[in-house]
Amino acid sequence: MLGSCLDRVREASPLVHCITNYVTVNDVANAILAVGASPIMSDEPEEVADITAICDALDLNIGTLNRLTIEGMRRAGARARELGHVVLLDPVGAGASPLRTRTALELLELARPDVVRGNASEVRALALGTTSTHGVDAAAADAVSEQNLDAMVEFAKGFAADVHATVAITGAIDLVADAGRCFVIRNGRPEMSRITGTGCQLSGVICAFVAAARAAAPAAGDVPAATPAAAATPAPAAGDTTVAVAAAVACMGLAGEVGSAHLAPHEGNATLRNRIIDALSHLDGAALDGGERCELR
Amino acid sequence: MLGSCLDRVREASPLVHCITNYVTVNDVANAILAVGASPIMSDEPEEVADITAICDALDLNIGTLNRLTIEGMRRAGARARELGHVVLLDPVGAGASPLRTRTALELLELARPDVVRGNASEVRALALGTTSTHGVDAAAADAVSEQNLDAMVEFAKGFAADVHATVAITGAIDLVADAGRCFVIRNGRPEMSRITGTGCQLSGVICAFVAAARAAAPAAGDVPAATPAAAATPAPAAGDTTVAVAAAVACMGLAGEVGSAHLAPHEGNATLRNRIIDALSHLDGAALDGGERCELR
Amino acid sequence: MLGSCLDRVREASPLVHCITNYVTVNDVANAILAVGASPIMSDEPEEVADITAICDALDLNIGTLNRLTIEGMRRAGARARELGHVVLLDPVGAGASPLRTRTALELLELARPDVVRGNASEVRALALGTTSTHGVDAAAADAVSEQNLDAMVEFAKGFAADVHATVAITGAIDLVADAGRCFVIRNGRPEMSRITGTGCQLSGVICAFVAAARAAAPAAGDVPAATPAAAATPAPAAGDTTVAVAAAVACMGLAGEVGSAHLAPHEGNATLRNRIIDALSHLDGAALDGGERCELR
Repeated sequence: MLGSCLDRVREASPLVHCITNYVTVNDVANAILAVGASPIMSDEPEEVADITAICDALDLNIGTLNRLTIEGMRRAGARARELGHVVLLDPVGAGASPLRTRTALELLELARPDVVRGNASEVRALALGTTSTHGVDAAAADAVSEQNLDAMVEFAKGFAADVHATVAITGAIDLVADAGRCFVIRNGRPEMSRITGTGCQLSGVICAFVAAARAAAPAAGDVPAATPAAAATPAPAAGDTTVAVAAAVACMGLAGEVGSAHLAPHEGNATLRNRIIDALSHLDGAALDGGERCELR
Repeated sequence: MLGSCLDRVREASPLVHCITNYVTVNDVANAILAVGASPIMSDEPEEVADITAICDALDLNIGTLNRLTIEGMRRAGARARELGHVVLLDPVGAGASPLRTRTALELLELARPDVVRGNASEVRALALGTTSTHGVDAAAADAVSEQNLDAMVEFAKGFAADVHATVAITGAIDLVADAGRCFVIRNGRPEMSRITGTGCQLSGVICAFVAAARAAAPAAGDVPAATPAAAATPAPAAGDTTVAVAAAVACMGLAGEVGSAHLAPHEGNATLRNRIIDALSHLDGAALDGGERCELR
Repeated sequence: MLGSCLDRVREASPLVHCITNYVTVNDVANAILAVGASPIMSDEPEEVADITAICDALDLNIGTLNRLTIEGMRRAGARARELGHVVLLDPVGAGASPLRTRTALELLELARPDVVRGNASEVRALALGTTSTHGVDAAAADAVSEQNLDAMVEFAKGFAADVHATVAITGAIDLVADAGRCFVIRNGRPEMSRITGTGCQLSGVICAFVAAARAAAPAAGDVPAATPAAAATPAPAAGDTTVAVAAAVACMGLAGEVGSAHLAPHEGNATLRNRIIDALSHLDGAALDGGERCELR
């Protein structure tokens, strides 16, 4: 079902503007290239509005935010929203410092992202104002498990409704929800959490998938610039954003499975990191259709 | 013919000061190390003049420019020019925003680089003031092909004459031109364009090759600090810059060929990225002489 | 002997706050994860005190310092010291510019690090105020060798006494010294110096080892916040910092040996970089006990 979403990325080759952290930025660029899209990184406040204007999607990742890049995210987010581009917020470390929580909440309001993607602790911090104590990794108590699945599905739908966005909570089990639906995705491998950047890569890849879905939809090209009045209403769905996000999540998880399967005994974390991007560059729609483990609730 | 240029890099081990983007900076450092030179990264305006003074070459790459690093590039460029060091400008994304185009043009004037390296869209943006619409990748319409080769060779020579520099336009076919000569280089593999950083790596490697060529030339060590009057004249060639740039371009392309040849079926983009640097670390002059596909026009 | 230190890292999984350069930051994060700890990167002055408060250790690496990150390092260093956290200073390029030397000396005074790790030129620059001329790599004349070993051991002990810290001077032969003891460690491979980042990774890994050693020691959890009077005295040893540093150094060197042993003939620098992190992710205490080449002087 989800395979056509990947094929569309390779056809449309959308351009993704990334304001993302300097830890995993290379992996983000290479993951976006591997699925057939193109990345451009730019965070200087003076140019971000120009850069985002020539792109199809905007990835806002606060992983190594600073006063300059926060201002860059504000301006890019406002401009991308105005132009009806795809906007994603990745609230890395929300809850780990007041600055991160505050910045993520501000961008949520200002840029009204189409997609919010984070781990369970980060999304919980945005939703409930709680604070995490384990940095950028999800606290065990927050994680989605078979035990708390029903409650987490409801939580994801509720938060999606509150922020008028598709919400992806990723971890051992991934949830992709809007107000009415939640995809529960069981692709992926536990060892993906022991390398940095799989979440950041996924955020960039999601941008590409959603932009390609909209490019394929009839009205995707001509969403009008929002007027102040219209700005209060979420942009009408062009293509199905939630399905496209679910496809990106399944695709990344499947790449982790394929990559992990090719590891020799002496190979470990760093090779897995490479194998995931290798797998992304080889996957096509048919492989995704065959490998997705996705349930709709 | 070009192999001796690589051997000279391994003998001279020049020190290359890089002010480069944070997306591909690790690859740039490792590529410079792989050919036998040493990198140092520094962009803080307060220290760049000191850092560049202990180096042999300066790599100015505007890929993730911001107000601080632009000021760093200005000061480093002015100081390196004053000291007669090798200076290269890599105008990443010129044409994608007014800030990028303006900054690249300013650095061209201020630092009077020995070498300008970019893709066809970037060099065209500098030469003609046109704007690109495809971010940091070359637009298909701009690319050098067998069909437009004669015209592009003339364009490259003309731009080289205008800016008193060696110009490298890299893509499927690479051109390395000064006012009188143009090397057409057909090394490389198409899949190199699907990973980020091969261009940035090449810029760093070119710096090492040109610095080594000058170190091997008799007068290379004692270029006097430019006086305001002398500053208007391009520095006299010590070693052959254009040949050294062509050698670096062929070397990078050949590394891509070697790296690509070693890929297993399940390996893709990320492994190719590693194999290119692996190949750079093994190549020597004899291998480059045997593998170069270089024509002089 | 040293193996239990690695096992403790995997048990305690300490959280390491890194303010580190953007060249090798991804490798630092992945190396910290590979030994079983968790990294968080944050350099914005406004948030570093909050981030460091939820961590166990702080890694201050000046490799690409700028005015903002210097202020971030100051505030994080002061707060981590106040909280009794593990603090490490990695004075990358000290001696290469007055700003680097001055900043490293200032942080040494302000944050009173538990550990200083650098190459011989960097540590010499701190100790003697000399200037290097070879960027971020150690000058050959400074390196520790079998010929100057006795003198370098005395130098390391003397500097450790001066700064009330454990000092790690790493290179072909590694020294880990406090005022009274010096471990001479002969793990590692020469080709590790031809890839960027092994030193930076080691600094991050040392933070994890020392934090885990303290977590395992009875009094580790309740070091009181320093009062101005108490601040003048070095924090009492909880766990043995110098042994933990020696274990981290041997572990990184052994990972280089294991990684190097798995290289195919066509593989080179980039694959070695990956194999080191692969090896870190597989090593356990027993393997470290079996492979350490460590002599106490």
